[in-house]
Amino acid sequence: MDFNKLLVKIKETAKLVDEYMLNNLKGRVKKLYEASQHLIKGGGKRLRPFLVLTSYNVFRDDIERALPIAAAIEIFHTFTLIHDDIMDQDETRRGLPTVHVIWGVPFAILTGDLLHAKTYELLTKANIKTEIALQIAREMAESAVRICEGQAMDMDFETRTDVTVEEYIEMIRGKTAFLFRSSARFGALAAEAQEDMIEALTNYGDYLGIAFQMVDDIIGLFGEKKETGKPVGSDIRESKKTYPILYALNNAPEEKRKRLLEILTLKTKTENDIREAIDIIRKSGGEEATRNLARTYAQKAIDAIKNLPENAPKQYLIQLAQFAIERSY
Amino acid sequence: MDFNKLLVKIKETAKLVDEYMLNNLKGRVKKLYEASQHLIKGGGKRLRPFLVLTSYNVFRDDIERALPIAAAIEIFHTFTLIHDDIMDQDETRRGLPTVHVIWGVPFAILTGDLLHAKTYELLTKANIKTEIALQIAREMAESAVRICEGQAMDMDFETRTDVTVEEYIEMIRGKTAFLFRSSARFGALAAEAQEDMIEALTNYGDYLGIAFQMVDDIIGLFGEKKETGKPVGSDIRESKKTYPILYALNNAPEEKRKRLLEILTLKTKTENDIREAIDIIRKSGGEEATRNLARTYAQKAIDAIKNLPENAPKQYLIQLAQFAIERSY
Repeated sequence: MDFNKLLVKIKETAKLVDEYMLNNLKGRVKKLYEASQHLIKGGGKRLRPFLVLTSYNVFRDDIERALPIAAAIEIFHTFTLIHDDIMDQDETRRGLPTVHVIWGVPFAILTGDLLHAKTYELLTKANIKTEIALQIAREMAESAVRICEGQAMDMDFETRTDVTVEEYIEMIRGKTAFLFRSSARFGALAAEAQEDMIEALTNYGDYLGIAFQMVDDIIGLFGEKKETGKPVGSDIRESKKTYPILYALNNAPEEKRKRLLEILTLKTKTENDIREAIDIIRKSGGEEATRNLARTYAQKAIDAIKNLPENAPKQYLIQLAQFAIERSY
Repeated sequence: MDFNKLLVKIKETAKLVDEYMLNNLKGRVKKLYEASQHLIKGGGKRLRPFLVLTSYNVFRDDIERALPIAAAIEIFHTFTLIHDDIMDQDETRRGLPTVHVIWGVPFAILTGDLLHAKTYELLTKANIKTEIALQIAREMAESAVRICEGQAMDMDFETRTDVTVEEYIEMIRGKTAFLFRSSARFGALAAEAQEDMIEALTNYGDYLGIAFQMVDDIIGLFGEKKETGKPVGSDIRESKKTYPILYALNNAPEEKRKRLLEILTLKTKTENDIREAIDIIRKSGGEEATRNLARTYAQKAIDAIKNLPENAPKQYLIQLAQFAIERSY
């Protein structure tokens, strides 16, 4: 499938959002705002703001009222990346040294906190109806709570070997899908769409987020550093329980299953251990199974918006769901 | 001065706020909510929620509409304490091990983030007029930004030896006074007080917060562990630039001034170094000078509310300003 037109549109949107974000990340204490802009300047696809704006554009042609919300969502996402990188002790992201590597852990914690606060500042300043602005701010806070819960589950799973697929889905629904869900939903809310349209886009975002995370799980295992900007096999190193890993634990031959479990419970893993684990997962069919399940969720996302008005933004949303599962970065 | 009646009232309010907070810190992932309740269960004076409710009670007799705001402010404060303790590597707080000591740094970061999000969740759920709720949420986010900036300045000052009193005031205005300011202001906003009354309480909170931090600086240097719940002299250990330290750096005899500067720039400080530094500050008159300046700000706070209606809550606010400078814990 040819995603060129979609990718051009995503890039155009990213430019607007980046400009808006950087203009709003200014204030006292130069170093703090430099650190807050670091990852943003490192690039990134900006899929969440694209989702806000495209969801909004299904109903309205302008972008004015949705842009601050789109920027707020990406600023929130940046906050979670900075804190996640500290928690996971990841040293590179988007090919750059992470914020705590450059400015130290204390300052990186603070930079994340600043961006978290900026999220609500931008949301509450958006030029939309008071009751909708308040609803979005409230739902953003509720989303943040769910995202923290998902992250806590993810960390908890690192020390567990009996994680079920159901638990995994619950975890990624919080950790990743909730922000996709809120992005699509907030765009529709800001456009003052009808209740059933808002619900359709909420479900679309939820399913898309699940599909997206599953593909991220694949990239996190098999992706090349030049594409991911992260070291190969970092999910194995951190004993994460991602879908391909769970799949291999449930489906690899007994001998291999045991060995994979052994590697995952090692405190320090050698490059060889990691290579061996990746090989076991690959041979168990973990990659294909994960992409197939992701495809199912992407289809659910597309089905969820079937009653949306037929227009270009709707087509972009359909393509985005297809792109989310075919991408390799 | 006898603060018994005030202290009883503060305790009564604390009980209501604690109950409300703990009831609202429940959700998925047990460990996350245990960690989020840890410092709250450790006690604390709850001066900020007291300020919200008392400011509200100047105009209204109930507390219903102000209680969620009071709880939100204390939850925000708890978030900052958890992250500050990580940044400062403090191992005890309120006589308890800090959150990162019990649950580890990654989980403590996440716990702080949860409480930060919960702040906005509670604020946006308060049963008050939509436009006032949105204003409070927006101002809370702006306060959080200012508080992060203040914290960044505080950290920056640790490596500097040329901090001026003006810079110090700007730093504590962000780091500490802004939350006092917002507490007093939000109470008045929730009560739908007149503009000049809101302004008066905003200024009261700002001045009170400055006075409060100056006395905290004294306690941070000269306080006993059993009163502060923290090790003696931790501000010296971390090379903070608090007011008594700045005073000694500006007023101690040249020999002593040099020695103090030397100790402050040591990477690792012995117990003897810390004792010596405290002694230099004490002999320079740093404690008295700080308490005198705090007294000036407390008086400004009291003057700011002179036009408030004469009633019991106003009297509590006056006493609170007096208590803030006389307290030793």
